[in-house]
Amino acid sequence: MGDVTPANQDQPSKSRPSKPSLPQGTRDFGPDVVQKRNFIFNTIRSVFELHGFQPLETPAMENLETLLGKYGEEGDKLIFKILNNGLGDPKNIDKARAAFENVLQGKNDRNLTERALKYDLTIPFARYVAMNHGRLAFPFRRYQVQPVWRADRPQRGRYREFYQCDADIVGSRSLLNEVELALVYSEVFRRLGIDVEIRINSRRILSALADVSGGQHLMIPLTVAIDKLDKIGHAGVAEEMQKLGIDANRSEQILQFISSTRTSVDASDDSLQFLGGSSQAAAGLEELRYVLSMLANTEAKNDVVVDFSLARGLNYYTGIIFEVRAENVQIGSIGGGGRYDDLTGLFGVPDLPGVGISFGVDRIYDVMEEMNLFPEAVHHGTMVLFFNLGDTEARTAFDFVRGLRKRGIASEIYHEASKLDKQFKYAEKKGIPYVVIIGSRELENKTCNVKNIISGDQKEVAFDELYNQFI
Amino acid sequence: MGDVTPANQDQPSKSRPSKPSLPQGTRDFGPDVVQKRNFIFNTIRSVFELHGFQPLETPAMENLETLLGKYGEEGDKLIFKILNNGLGDPKNIDKARAAFENVLQGKNDRNLTERALKYDLTIPFARYVAMNHGRLAFPFRRYQVQPVWRADRPQRGRYREFYQCDADIVGSRSLLNEVELALVYSEVFRRLGIDVEIRINSRRILSALADVSGGQHLMIPLTVAIDKLDKIGHAGVAEEMQKLGIDANRSEQILQFISSTRTSVDASDDSLQFLGGSSQAAAGLEELRYVLSMLANTEAKNDVVVDFSLARGLNYYTGIIFEVRAENVQIGSIGGGGRYDDLTGLFGVPDLPGVGISFGVDRIYDVMEEMNLFPEAVHHGTMVLFFNLGDTEARTAFDFVRGLRKRGIASEIYHEASKLDKQFKYAEKKGIPYVVIIGSRELENKTCNVKNIISGDQKEVAFDELYNQFI
Repeated sequence: MGDVTPANQDQPSKSRPSKPSLPQGTRDFGPDVVQKRNFIFNTIRSVFELHGFQPLETPAMENLETLLGKYGEEGDKLIFKILNNGLGDPKNIDKARAAFENVLQGKNDRNLTERALKYDLTIPFARYVAMNHGRLAFPFRRYQVQPVWRADRPQRGRYREFYQCDADIVGSRSLLNEVELALVYSEVFRRLGIDVEIRINSRRILSALADVSGGQHLMIPLTVAIDKLDKIGHAGVAEEMQKLGIDANRSEQILQFISSTRTSVDASDDSLQFLGGSSQAAAGLEELRYVLSMLANTEAKNDVVVDFSLARGLNYYTGIIFEVRAENVQIGSIGGGGRYDDLTGLFGVPDLPGVGISFGVDRIYDVMEEMNLFPEAVHHGTMVLFFNLGDTEARTAFDFVRGLRKRGIASEIYHEASKLDKQFKYAEKKGIPYVVIIGSRELENKTCNVKNIISGDQKEVAFDELYNQFI
Repeated sequence: MGDVTPANQDQPSKSRPSKPSLPQGTRDFGPDVVQKRNFIFNTIRSVFELHGFQPLETPAMENLETLLGKYGEEGDKLIFKILNNGLGDPKNIDKARAAFENVLQGKNDRNLTERALKYDLTIPFARYVAMNHGRLAFPFRRYQVQPVWRADRPQRGRYREFYQCDADIVGSRSLLNEVELALVYSEVFRRLGIDVEIRINSRRILSALADVSGGQHLMIPLTVAIDKLDKIGHAGVAEEMQKLGIDANRSEQILQFISSTRTSVDASDDSLQFLGGSSQAAAGLEELRYVLSMLANTEAKNDVVVDFSLARGLNYYTGIIFEVRAENVQIGSIGGGGRYDDLTGLFGVPDLPGVGISFGVDRIYDVMEEMNLFPEAVHHGTMVLFFNLGDTEARTAFDFVRGLRKRGIASEIYHEASKLDKQFKYAEKKGIPYVVIIGSRELENKTCNVKNIISGDQKEVAFDELYNQFI
């Protein structure tokens, strides 16, 4: 309840007690969950930093004009807008009314709302790079772990406030960057203990498929169709391709081509022949071959496969794309990303290509829970609780509490001399493994009773020996 | 640019490049600042956990009704409200218009805005405790480090989005909790290297001062006057007291009483006699005496002083109050808090007293900058950059990069075979201390050139010896 910049509280509230609740699609994270989430975040952060990525944090609020028009029409509707303050001010009231009518008609008006909550980490990152590009060392490797907000309909696993966790390298066309990001993925999931398949493809291959199917105008609809392979299967995609006017033979070739993953790419492979002399196909295959060759003698080697059916919905991807799936849990992708040509053009800074990846932290959490992968040490709560048996006894116990803390052991003393079973219950409920009892007899003998709550073991320990029980 | 839940990007934006900017009162935190801030946050977090506090995270968004009426009329005006989505929907439009008129008249209406950004960490904490009190172990020690938002006029050192950092113990009236929080303060600032004065007082003393000045109705105005002692001085406060109708003699006694800090509280002290038999005064003095006695043989002993002029603006404080100031930098308080009687009554859960403290992270940051207290090791950026001298050389360099990373050393290889001075500049700009050069000659000799960018020292090192240079 401390507050460094105190608000005026002189008018106490008169509202009656109400049953409090949380906004739909948002969550509280209690101690246990925070610690597990931090285990994931800290693992990812250390791997990012080991690979030369630097942290960036941008505000939750952006100017509305920074965000609008960047996520398509549907995206714009899902942006949480912040109401301007002081709308009731008589000298603004007419402007406010006019602004509100504009907003009702789907337009935006700074006189009603000029700020919004960020919708992803990419646009704020682009805004930051555009504003600071003179000062940054390029290629700029940044990572960012922050919440974003979307006014989506809440449902299982979809929230209105959730963390994104991104790493990007911008200002370079070198494929070494793609290799680095594959290594980051592999190392993070190795450390978390999750077996993964890191699928890669090149958007140039998808472009080549459009070429041999009738032309570039088919690129997006064909990509959308292929993207559904997991959901609607072979026959479903064939049907969608038929609707696009792609002939049955070609459809069959494409489906055969995209239907299995590969660990190497060989241009002489029969299933590639139908791509013929497409320069896009050759370039895409060369990209994939280079990345695989650089990963060949690394630990990532066994995680990475080429999946020609991989499309990734976002149409700003232009080169290699990534998607990560857990081997043993059916939960959809737990990571994804790819190369793009232009990060900051919309903000007036042209020619800044890059490549980035993202971790789906909520799903990673679920995978780790389901597979029981969180290590015991995640819970760094209180280790020792000293019972409180009265003022004199408590003063001695308190000395030991401070002594243990000085040795790095999280410790507490119970706040008052309650009945022992109440104090035991506190230790149990908080998951504290050890309790120490110092009563008047113990005080006299300079000993204490140390009890392991989990095993039930109890022993008498001399004061001199107490610290050694826990270090 | 990775995105696990891709938005629909099929309609590319047609907006023209605009010069991007940040909302007033918000900040980007670049790599250097994030690392320094995290040093502060991590230090505070470890001390919290060592003392048995558990982390809590609540959403940025709360239901508006959770927040309204909790911060006084002025506070309500500073809450950032979030506009409901879908207002333009024809079937809601009349409701929306009516709601907007209500809002213009200073009322609130769920049909326009039902959510808001949190204004502090205390009310969301209270809401959490009220919703979960059956499951928590009381006394509940929670800490919370999260941003809050206030539509204040931005000015130097005052932001619209800033972090608060709170620890509270709720569900106990024991003064041991105040002792614990004083220890937390002392240990945090010891670890940060900031010499501090932790001032304490009891609101009961202020209540006693009101009693001897004319009655309890003077408690708040007298507290407000005393709170200004730093700003308006002895004479200014005397004048304010005169305006409250307090006679000159009594004013003088009070001013003498509050004008100097003390390291002990002795009831026989002359300057206390005018408080006479006030039971509030006796209780307040006893609280202070107990806290000082428990701290007497701890490291906090030399940090804590009693300051009878300490008032803390918030009138929900009822017992011991805290304020922390840096000894060597004039910047106002860098921490504050106190005891309160009722955390959750407004949410229908009565009788939950507690005590809490807060850290002013932005000011702590400024103090540490001014006194040069951030340790070198705060910057855990890339340690070694390998130059890129072509594909063959790069493959060998890349093996070493991965070898160093495996040994915990953050390393990179330059993304392309550019001119050496460009690669040097990258290392300099990013603050990377070592560069390693492997050209064709080095490849042949199985040696490399290791250069320390800071000292300028350069030496030839055999491949076999390379890792040992950095471990």
